[in-house]
Amino acid sequence: MNITVLGCGRWGAFHAWYAHHIGHHVTLWGRPGSPHLAELISQRRNEYMTLPRDIALTADLTGALAGADVVIISISAQQLRNLAGQIKGTGLTKMPFILCMKGLEIGTGKRLTTVMKEVLGPHVRTIVWVGPGHVQDFLAGMPNCMVMASDNLDRTKHMANLFSSPLIRFYYGKDLLGTEIGAAAKNVIGIAAGMLDGYHYTSLKGALMARGTHELSRLIAAMGGDAMTVYGLSHLGDYEATLFSRHSNNRRFGEDFILGKPFAKLAEGVYTSQALVDLSDAYQVELPITRTIYEIICHQKDPLEGLQDLFLRSQKEE
Amino acid sequence: MNITVLGCGRWGAFHAWYAHHIGHHVTLWGRPGSPHLAELISQRRNEYMTLPRDIALTADLTGALAGADVVIISISAQQLRNLAGQIKGTGLTKMPFILCMKGLEIGTGKRLTTVMKEVLGPHVRTIVWVGPGHVQDFLAGMPNCMVMASDNLDRTKHMANLFSSPLIRFYYGKDLLGTEIGAAAKNVIGIAAGMLDGYHYTSLKGALMARGTHELSRLIAAMGGDAMTVYGLSHLGDYEATLFSRHSNNRRFGEDFILGKPFAKLAEGVYTSQALVDLSDAYQVELPITRTIYEIICHQKDPLEGLQDLFLRSQKEE
Repeated sequence: MNITVLGCGRWGAFHAWYAHHIGHHVTLWGRPGSPHLAELISQRRNEYMTLPRDIALTADLTGALAGADVVIISISAQQLRNLAGQIKGTGLTKMPFILCMKGLEIGTGKRLTTVMKEVLGPHVRTIVWVGPGHVQDFLAGMPNCMVMASDNLDRTKHMANLFSSPLIRFYYGKDLLGTEIGAAAKNVIGIAAGMLDGYHYTSLKGALMARGTHELSRLIAAMGGDAMTVYGLSHLGDYEATLFSRHSNNRRFGEDFILGKPFAKLAEGVYTSQALVDLSDAYQVELPITRTIYEIICHQKDPLEGLQDLFLRSQKEE
Repeated sequence: MNITVLGCGRWGAFHAWYAHHIGHHVTLWGRPGSPHLAELISQRRNEYMTLPRDIALTADLTGALAGADVVIISISAQQLRNLAGQIKGTGLTKMPFILCMKGLEIGTGKRLTTVMKEVLGPHVRTIVWVGPGHVQDFLAGMPNCMVMASDNLDRTKHMANLFSSPLIRFYYGKDLLGTEIGAAAKNVIGIAAGMLDGYHYTSLKGALMARGTHELSRLIAAMGGDAMTVYGLSHLGDYEATLFSRHSNNRRFGEDFILGKPFAKLAEGVYTSQALVDLSDAYQVELPITRTIYEIICHQKDPLEGLQDLFLRSQKEE
């Protein structure tokens, strides 16, 4: 099949590599002026991998979409509305779009599949592909299970079969809302985990896992999703990769924040914490961990005091 | 208060240290002939800590129980029935007993509070004290949250208040059955985590967390407990300490098993896996991970094939 990947950062490049690895014809698109794209064009490789010669590299969106049977999108979540608008401009919107990205739109708190529908119309076929796994691990041959979800189970299964291999096995998610919220929110829990590491409170990550899943479960239920979805692969199943792995950007961001190390840019979980706080207010569901992380990063709340308040102050029923 | 701790291994000695640390009068008992007790008597210390001089050390059970306001028991789970019989023999059974131990009785699958009731009578006051934390971390001053549960919430709260300090904060559990099963079962998941580490499948620990909690949640619900209890501190909240920490005996056991390293004795989780398989049969609830671990250790099932079957074979709904 002809697979086009939009976005040529670490994950976008990996998805191009992977689609080629399992036998598809692949085109990898980066926006005009992208330094990642320039690096791939000039060297055929980035920090993580070398791309085979027969993966086409382009900055021409119309050319990339023309003839694509399936489109994978892997960009920063806050850029999705803009890219979707560009896709609409090409008129090439009939193929399935797989979102390999995690986040919520700040300002609106909207899910990424909602953004796609708003821009491309209610009939756009969007599938999310989330769950655990690091590019570095996959490239080293370490397999993992991931999850796909959409609002159409047959479509989900079809896409999961298309992309399954010994390296990645898929579970099907039946709760798209819970899958998207949970996948986005795990980045916030990852930042919290990094902050605990920064204070050598690593052993509190157990309590973080129990309390973090709990507050998000309540939010998802209030939004109309399934309270159990966060306990599946899309959220809890991603905790090893997000809360414990040295490869986790969000965990690293949280640790560096506490250690006072400079960081080049905000982790995706920072934006997600802001969107989740808006959802917390809108749906009247308390999110103590999420709100604390947001206030620490965005409103100069004292981090040590904030974390101790979360885990070491009160005695209460679970 | 007068606190007596029965059992002078790593955790028993820690509980004596901790009860003294928060201001109680402490007696630490070990069985006659215990090498741990001999070491503590001769050196006042073990591998992990030095015990203050005013903690009484004894092998006399009647003397240890006489005058005790609260008794903490921290021994191997399979020895509890025997010790409870000895306690009954002293006639000193009116004080609350706190079980700081995790396990199920093999052969019967019985919970430890059930064993206490069967031996000491239905009116025995037993509280369980479980949840995350490693002796090494506590002694290094790293705080954690833990959980107490019993069949009487007022009693639970009273005991939690009695033992709370800045080092250990308590949550109250309201589902004793789920708390006990989950606390015991986390050792089995810890062995599975170690086996994954042994094969460099560390990144599959995310899927292990999602699938492990799920199967145990179903068992607990079938037994009459609360399906959500495993997602609290007593089970999921103990995953950092059990699945990720270098201090975890069960994780280490699983890793050493795969690496072919010799081990001095079976980890508690091995016995628990056997008891859980019996419960799986009795309650007709499938426990794929637990049964696989049991069959790998006790019935020479191929470990790599068993683990791959669990996580990397089928594609299915979550």
